[in-house]
Amino acid sequence: MEPSEPFCIAAGASAAGSQPHATLYLRLAEEIAASIRGGAWGTGERLPSVRQLARERGLSAATVIRAHELLEELGYVESVPRSGHYVSGSWREQLGSTQASPSAGLSAPLDVGEIPFQMFDSIRGRKVVPFGSAFAGPELFPLAKLGHALALSARSLDPWRTVQDLADGNLELRKRIAQRYLRHGAHVSPNEIVITSGAMEALNLCLQAITRPGDTIVIEAPTFYGCLHAVKTYGLRAFEIPTHARDGVDLKALARLLSTAPVRACWFMTTFQNPLGASMPPSAKRELVRLLEARNVPLIEDNVYAELYHGTAPPKLTKAFDRRGVVLDCGSFSKCLAPGYRVGWVAAGRYAQAVRRSKFMSSLGTNIAAQDATAAFLRTGTYDRHLRQLRRVLAKQQSAALESLHKHLGEGFRVTRPDGGYFLWIELPSAVNAVELYRLALARGISIAPGPVFSLHRGFDHFIRLNYGHPWTAASDAAVATMAEIMRTLEREAVA
Amino acid sequence: MEPSEPFCIAAGASAAGSQPHATLYLRLAEEIAASIRGGAWGTGERLPSVRQLARERGLSAATVIRAHELLEELGYVESVPRSGHYVSGSWREQLGSTQASPSAGLSAPLDVGEIPFQMFDSIRGRKVVPFGSAFAGPELFPLAKLGHALALSARSLDPWRTVQDLADGNLELRKRIAQRYLRHGAHVSPNEIVITSGAMEALNLCLQAITRPGDTIVIEAPTFYGCLHAVKTYGLRAFEIPTHARDGVDLKALARLLSTAPVRACWFMTTFQNPLGASMPPSAKRELVRLLEARNVPLIEDNVYAELYHGTAPPKLTKAFDRRGVVLDCGSFSKCLAPGYRVGWVAAGRYAQAVRRSKFMSSLGTNIAAQDATAAFLRTGTYDRHLRQLRRVLAKQQSAALESLHKHLGEGFRVTRPDGGYFLWIELPSAVNAVELYRLALARGISIAPGPVFSLHRGFDHFIRLNYGHPWTAASDAAVATMAEIMRTLEREAVA
Repeated sequence: MEPSEPFCIAAGASAAGSQPHATLYLRLAEEIAASIRGGAWGTGERLPSVRQLARERGLSAATVIRAHELLEELGYVESVPRSGHYVSGSWREQLGSTQASPSAGLSAPLDVGEIPFQMFDSIRGRKVVPFGSAFAGPELFPLAKLGHALALSARSLDPWRTVQDLADGNLELRKRIAQRYLRHGAHVSPNEIVITSGAMEALNLCLQAITRPGDTIVIEAPTFYGCLHAVKTYGLRAFEIPTHARDGVDLKALARLLSTAPVRACWFMTTFQNPLGASMPPSAKRELVRLLEARNVPLIEDNVYAELYHGTAPPKLTKAFDRRGVVLDCGSFSKCLAPGYRVGWVAAGRYAQAVRRSKFMSSLGTNIAAQDATAAFLRTGTYDRHLRQLRRVLAKQQSAALESLHKHLGEGFRVTRPDGGYFLWIELPSAVNAVELYRLALARGISIAPGPVFSLHRGFDHFIRLNYGHPWTAASDAAVATMAEIMRTLEREAVA
Repeated sequence: MEPSEPFCIAAGASAAGSQPHATLYLRLAEEIAASIRGGAWGTGERLPSVRQLARERGLSAATVIRAHELLEELGYVESVPRSGHYVSGSWREQLGSTQASPSAGLSAPLDVGEIPFQMFDSIRGRKVVPFGSAFAGPELFPLAKLGHALALSARSLDPWRTVQDLADGNLELRKRIAQRYLRHGAHVSPNEIVITSGAMEALNLCLQAITRPGDTIVIEAPTFYGCLHAVKTYGLRAFEIPTHARDGVDLKALARLLSTAPVRACWFMTTFQNPLGASMPPSAKRELVRLLEARNVPLIEDNVYAELYHGTAPPKLTKAFDRRGVVLDCGSFSKCLAPGYRVGWVAAGRYAQAVRRSKFMSSLGTNIAAQDATAAFLRTGTYDRHLRQLRRVLAKQQSAALESLHKHLGEGFRVTRPDGGYFLWIELPSAVNAVELYRLALARGISIAPGPVFSLHRGFDHFIRLNYGHPWTAASDAAVATMAEIMRTLEREAVA
């Protein structure tokens, strides 16, 4: 993906140092050719006019014309009388294809840290079965309706809002979010909410506001790889705390750790944890807050799946037990309503001011129209209707995924059955290495998320995360059958 | 802005530990009251229904009804038969006003690091004269037209784009941006561009991709305070390099520094620098790239004002001299086209892959519809028509500002006359301290940006930055007269 190397059209054209007048047209032609080769203009696109280029570059029209003529001779452009110069396709033939093979690198030794990026690249297309994806199926979201709300907001936007709504964000949206917390047993003030470009930004801002490089934080094991990346980015030290696949963080281990190490903050997902699907029981959430309050340690909570419970009662949040503002609860509409809109938030308790300042300094504000459109969805009740539907769909997809796994994998594996979110955490037979399975499955067009990407120490060799957030189809079922076949092969090889 | 302290409605209601059944309604009432006091519901808004609350909280309808009755008795809500419970205004009278005086804190000793936040808060309203603002007047932008483009994009969005356009962003937008670089003498490939939530995010991502905590970078003095904040956030060490108000970075000083210190990167604004307005001449830009290439030191370039040149010829960018991909050029549409849309980018040269990964891990992607709308504006030429108009307006506003300054300030001050952007850098008489002037002017409803906020070492005590990006009115002229009056008072006090 690096820019192509400079490439001389004519000898001496790009020689640095003195720039004799006679080579000005060569230099211009070289620049245009380079930008065509770099992909800035596609075949058939029109270049800027002679007049425009001459004015902008401070060149004479004659120089620009001479450059165009040279580009024409070399096959880069075609001239259309009284219209202009258009990019020709023929230059490609001279250079040959430079496109990389899509599977290049797959057979090279694999750095586990690369896998999240590779997983993302593979699920961008529609052809790979997206069990490894972190997202639910885009078709499950009311994007057309949202588009209408966005259209309405955008056309009536008061220009001053572009300044007023910076930093903490749209007040109506903050109020509506604060109101929703009551359903989960928490009371939150709009004044402690900062709107962010998705929950990822919210989590990063919390770290920026609370920690300094060299500080120690506590994270779950396994945990979301975005958390592992943030630990590195901000130069933090991290303790990984054992986390149970059903009940979440091991509180005894946490209590021991807090009493011995100088912990600056915890970063947990106490409801529908990624990748486990675990939720701490309410009594454990209460105990967690008590532990943190006693030592004045804030909890940065990644809470993006809380609305995706599969039953009818909203789970009680850890924030519900927070009386002193030590929980920074990060949420998002990306998982529940509007992927691609990048609207999230943090209810930051006593750290609200610090987070607001980090937001102001690191990205200034969040897209204004998207905030408006989201507020409109919350105001009219459309969001709740959509959520009820989405929860039913996800619960059905979970059943279908579990059925398919049991049918094809038989004995020798274990799987969670979480009450929300859209991930299953699967323990493989001990002979099956998750990264091996990942590689072989991807070669067959199936993406999965292998356990080692979810830990600093690359453990969880025999676990995978499987996404059931996409409509479960015959292709999904066939992909599980293929995975089962690969696993049997790996088991036979281990025995031999 | 911290959440209000818990406050008991009735004795024993919030006692921790055992939760006898009889107090369930008290606890629910307390939560609702707290969320009303916190501002989550305004006067006249309807609370969730008894049925909804009962279902969501796992309580009996009788418990919820009892809670509502208590809230009614206490004046928090009013019941409207056959409609529901509405928030009443009368609870406010019991508690008294909690609103802080808008000028609170102004007379307390001032931490210079606080000033950028205070400046921002003061210009959010429309009443303060925004000479200290970092933004141009919102009324100068085609927000209604953009709204139409956004509406069109939003309604025809392919759901899969919400996945495909993550990380590096919309391909058409990247192509259009790459094309525009040619006007500034640079050739850039769409593949090296990553779309970001404004240039601030782009700059932060570049630091994340290139530096590790403890690394040393070189910055300008004076420089944009966002740069100073980033240095702290990422645990960097920073050398401040002398920067001339007309020609920018002192290259001799830089060469000496590069030959003695282990510099990981430079962060400069070589075109229309903030706060100076300085632009390095093309020969200096070429020399800068040569210096950096020789030592393999990347340049993170904050290039958000390059399109706001006041003449007719686009300035040649430092990126134009970059043959090895060492310049990471960060741009934005926020200053030129669409404030509040938060669409920026970086052309990251050989660091494109690293920046793309930082983007993926720290905010996943940029608002999809805003990217589409921006691409449409670039496609149709509407952007260029708007820019021509905006450049003329800014040049006129600069003339008006300079005329007003000369009229009221007389002798004893010096001011820059930059070729682009919308900032003037003003040297005050030596008896006038900029932070003093800032405080006194703000008390008279005028915001200015005092020199010390632009440096780690808090120098520039006798300089201010003045924004001429808002329409220059009689009120602007009167504000300059008031500033002159304050300055004369300060000078007299210094003599006395």
